[in-house]
Amino acid sequence: MSAPARLLIACPDATGIVASVTGFLAERGANVFDLEQHSDPQRNEFTMRVEFEPGDRRSFEADFERLASERAFQHRLSFEPQTKRIAVLTGPSSHCLADLLWRCTTDDIDANIVGVISNHDDHRAFVEHHDIPYHHVPVASEDRAVHEAGLMRTLDALRPDLVVLARYMRVLSPAFVECWAGRMINIHHSFLPAFVGSDPYRQAHERGVKVIGATSHFVTAALDEGPIIAQAVQDVSHHDTVNELKRKGRDLERVVLAHAVRKWIEEKILIRGNRTIVFR
Amino acid sequence: MSAPARLLIACPDATGIVASVTGFLAERGANVFDLEQHSDPQRNEFTMRVEFEPGDRRSFEADFERLASERAFQHRLSFEPQTKRIAVLTGPSSHCLADLLWRCTTDDIDANIVGVISNHDDHRAFVEHHDIPYHHVPVASEDRAVHEAGLMRTLDALRPDLVVLARYMRVLSPAFVECWAGRMINIHHSFLPAFVGSDPYRQAHERGVKVIGATSHFVTAALDEGPIIAQAVQDVSHHDTVNELKRKGRDLERVVLAHAVRKWIEEKILIRGNRTIVFR
Amino acid sequence: MSAPARLLIACPDATGIVASVTGFLAERGANVFDLEQHSDPQRNEFTMRVEFEPGDRRSFEADFERLASERAFQHRLSFEPQTKRIAVLTGPSSHCLADLLWRCTTDDIDANIVGVISNHDDHRAFVEHHDIPYHHVPVASEDRAVHEAGLMRTLDALRPDLVVLARYMRVLSPAFVECWAGRMINIHHSFLPAFVGSDPYRQAHERGVKVIGATSHFVTAALDEGPIIAQAVQDVSHHDTVNELKRKGRDLERVVLAHAVRKWIEEKILIRGNRTIVFR
Amino acid sequence: MSAPARLLIACPDATGIVASVTGFLAERGANVFDLEQHSDPQRNEFTMRVEFEPGDRRSFEADFERLASERAFQHRLSFEPQTKRIAVLTGPSSHCLADLLWRCTTDDIDANIVGVISNHDDHRAFVEHHDIPYHHVPVASEDRAVHEAGLMRTLDALRPDLVVLARYMRVLSPAFVECWAGRMINIHHSFLPAFVGSDPYRQAHERGVKVIGATSHFVTAALDEGPIIAQAVQDVSHHDTVNELKRKGRDLERVVLAHAVRKWIEEKILIRGNRTIVFR
Repeated sequence: MSAPARLLIACPDATGIVASVTGFLAERGANVFDLEQHSDPQRNEFTMRVEFEPGDRRSFEADFERLASERAFQHRLSFEPQTKRIAVLTGPSSHCLADLLWRCTTDDIDANIVGVISNHDDHRAFVEHHDIPYHHVPVASEDRAVHEAGLMRTLDALRPDLVVLARYMRVLSPAFVECWAGRMINIHHSFLPAFVGSDPYRQAHERGVKVIGATSHFVTAALDEGPIIAQAVQDVSHHDTVNELKRKGRDLERVVLAHAVRKWIEEKILIRGNRTIVFR
Repeated sequence: MSAPARLLIACPDATGIVASVTGFLAERGANVFDLEQHSDPQRNEFTMRVEFEPGDRRSFEADFERLASERAFQHRLSFEPQTKRIAVLTGPSSHCLADLLWRCTTDDIDANIVGVISNHDDHRAFVEHHDIPYHHVPVASEDRAVHEAGLMRTLDALRPDLVVLARYMRVLSPAFVECWAGRMINIHHSFLPAFVGSDPYRQAHERGVKVIGATSHFVTAALDEGPIIAQAVQDVSHHDTVNELKRKGRDLERVVLAHAVRKWIEEKILIRGNRTIVFR
Repeated sequence: MSAPARLLIACPDATGIVASVTGFLAERGANVFDLEQHSDPQRNEFTMRVEFEPGDRRSFEADFERLASERAFQHRLSFEPQTKRIAVLTGPSSHCLADLLWRCTTDDIDANIVGVISNHDDHRAFVEHHDIPYHHVPVASEDRAVHEAGLMRTLDALRPDLVVLARYMRVLSPAFVECWAGRMINIHHSFLPAFVGSDPYRQAHERGVKVIGATSHFVTAALDEGPIIAQAVQDVSHHDTVNELKRKGRDLERVVLAHAVRKWIEEKILIRGNRTIVFR
Repeated sequence: MSAPARLLIACPDATGIVASVTGFLAERGANVFDLEQHSDPQRNEFTMRVEFEPGDRRSFEADFERLASERAFQHRLSFEPQTKRIAVLTGPSSHCLADLLWRCTTDDIDANIVGVISNHDDHRAFVEHHDIPYHHVPVASEDRAVHEAGLMRTLDALRPDLVVLARYMRVLSPAFVECWAGRMINIHHSFLPAFVGSDPYRQAHERGVKVIGATSHFVTAALDEGPIIAQAVQDVSHHDTVNELKRKGRDLERVVLAHAVRKWIEEKILIRGNRTIVFR
């Protein structure tokens, strides 16, 4: 079975929006089989996601654009969802990379990894074993702009729908990040907003916390401050050294990152300001 | 602000149901602010819950009954939700009782406990301190029917919307239970279906499990086999004696029971066969 | 059965410490039935907790002091543990207070609440129903020193072993806090170090986090920066308003606070710098 | 740094056991840096695990055997722990296999996978890419004994310390299982004792549970009834189809299995009857 059509809408709240959209679908014989709608009264914000089986497809998309324009929807209509293309940027750690490779080459996440990019050459054999191209973009120059130009060329050639930073350890410039707004997901190894920046497990160890966490979020110009998609935590104790926190954290990171990637692939995320709406 | 109107619908899946209901609401100027709909393709089962602010109230309910009858909905429409009445049946343990009393006398759960019934007299002072009537219905006879007749009279006089078994330790007859179908919730101190019946913490200890759990469920004629509403678990270890399992379990039980009661009070549960649909 | 004797030791690591202590106990026919020892190689720090049934009690304590002084132990020996006395300071919220009252008046936590102190008079009837004195210490003056002097007099009269801040909403002065170093536990309604200070649920809502948390910690002069004892979290979503975060948080707070209080009462916590060793 | 020496002891409880063992160690200048001891009064059972840096190694092991024999210890002394050898038996599902391969070829679990055995040939390329031998032992005959003889020959040749059933889907005979008592770990895809046997996710779906789980346990002659090592659960809802339960379950299974394998490798498990003591 192919994936059902999907529709995401955000707009100011008003009476009759659900009726207008579902009426539009019913007129075309489309069967809605999952709908999730919520209005946030404080923000006067209407958000909705619909999954449906299109019936009469003639001029469906053009007609919907007309409705959307009348009603001032911000929307995304995936009439015939295609398998998404993912580019993975990675650093020396392999756990998130290995996990995503396993998920996308089995039926766990319905997406294609079209390339893996790293400033290290360590993971080449493992990635190529999965018949996925590996691009080594070394940091040859002190000049970040030069390096980022190389990255950008490589990414552009891969034409990804989504860029995943799988423990990529370099900070990207605001200009670079801006090009992938809403399409670049990072995993940070703490429960944000605690322990922003480098070496969060060491920070956590020093503070003596009793839980550690991981956070997946959209990348924005402000480091570790983009809209949060998913978070999870794990109990720790005074026994745990920094290395043990890192080990426990790996199991969190890969699951939290995979969760965010799956939600994005299934088009279940809306970004509103610095927050996300994540449909179930 | 008064509670919004609520509508729950279950019926065989078909095209256009959401549109017909939300169209009905839009015609009356009703503003939908939360809608959750799902079709289960395996069971051909459509389920939906809508929260809305009724606009034009004239003949709203009668008109909706007509639509519902045309479309063969099983439904519940709470046009002007009233604060629900809860009767609590309890045994010697006080943790679930004390928790429900605290929740319903603060703003944590929006319901009134209209009476507490027990075959023990232990909790009278505590309950009456909350200005809630306490009914001691002792087990005076060997004959269960006699005892249950006394219980039933007491319950009938309280006119509860919901009966909560808060660690009530006696098995009720199928005939008794039948009278409260869909309106009687129990807390069982294991993660069902493991450890049905008596002394589940001892059973868990003997089996050497590494997690214990609690399950809230609707009461049906078959002991501990009714539709499950909520479950949660807690890690345990070889250190834990049966008494320590009981202590840890108490914290689970009261939270899992309160969760189920809240969902019922907010009319977020549909029973389908032996399963529940619990809206978010 | 009375509580077993307990011994906590912290000192620089060295060879033979466990042997010297357990040899001391064996010579007196004491039966060790729970021992937990760990050396932190990074900090060269030896920590140990022993539970034992004292055998020959003659000059036990004096002899142990001699051993401790030879070995330069920092230690606590509870030879015949007495039921501990707790004073609770509370603000307008009742959930932690009600929870502690229930726990300490049943067998859930083995301690006596000897008094409840508040700058509000709201909880008097509920507390006094448990036969526990309620002390209303109003904030009559702008001068914090005056108010704290009143608090201190009230506390001194209660002679508590432990002071629990159960959602007490006022910041105490460093001088006040210093008097109760290691004997005053607070519950903060976030997963520290995130969201220090006031209204953490609002901060969490604004940041758009997907988990909220609660942290119990020893109170020190630096606000919300004392040694952490326990933390727990709960999933939340974009649906949750600030009020719903508060409601969900209440269930976390009372469990996390009770966990810390129980560990303290059972003498299972050592403070080392700004971290805690919490024995299992 | 090489792994520290490890000592596990189980015996009937008596006064002076800790002292005798730690005294033995102190006499030889051994530095104990982690000790965990517990007596179970109901079972009169003493259990202890010690990690230490041996000092004077001369006749250490022979002397200890003498002490152990005097005191009637059941014990295991790993004086110079060697990297353990693991054989993995797997079926068509790859998630646990891929996970273990990743863990044992990075520093996540300190063990060598010396061979992977399957009655399918699907995973050969992936396994061999890790330079690990892959043994295809097809089910060529209706006769289980014939197949098991082939398995046993293959296993014997690999000389594993531990056999891991990573979603191996065939039931092994009691005689086969007996050969690997205490050295064969399985992952079952439910929170045992619920949903024993085949297709537990389908059973869970039919029962309408709100949590699913996974259990790692030692394999014994009675199917899914061996001593439990670790368990974990995950929330599910009415939305989840059987396939979605399977997908969510995969993330549980691999973590729960890896946890058990790590504990075994680190010699932190004692089996007592049908329960396990799992040291922290």
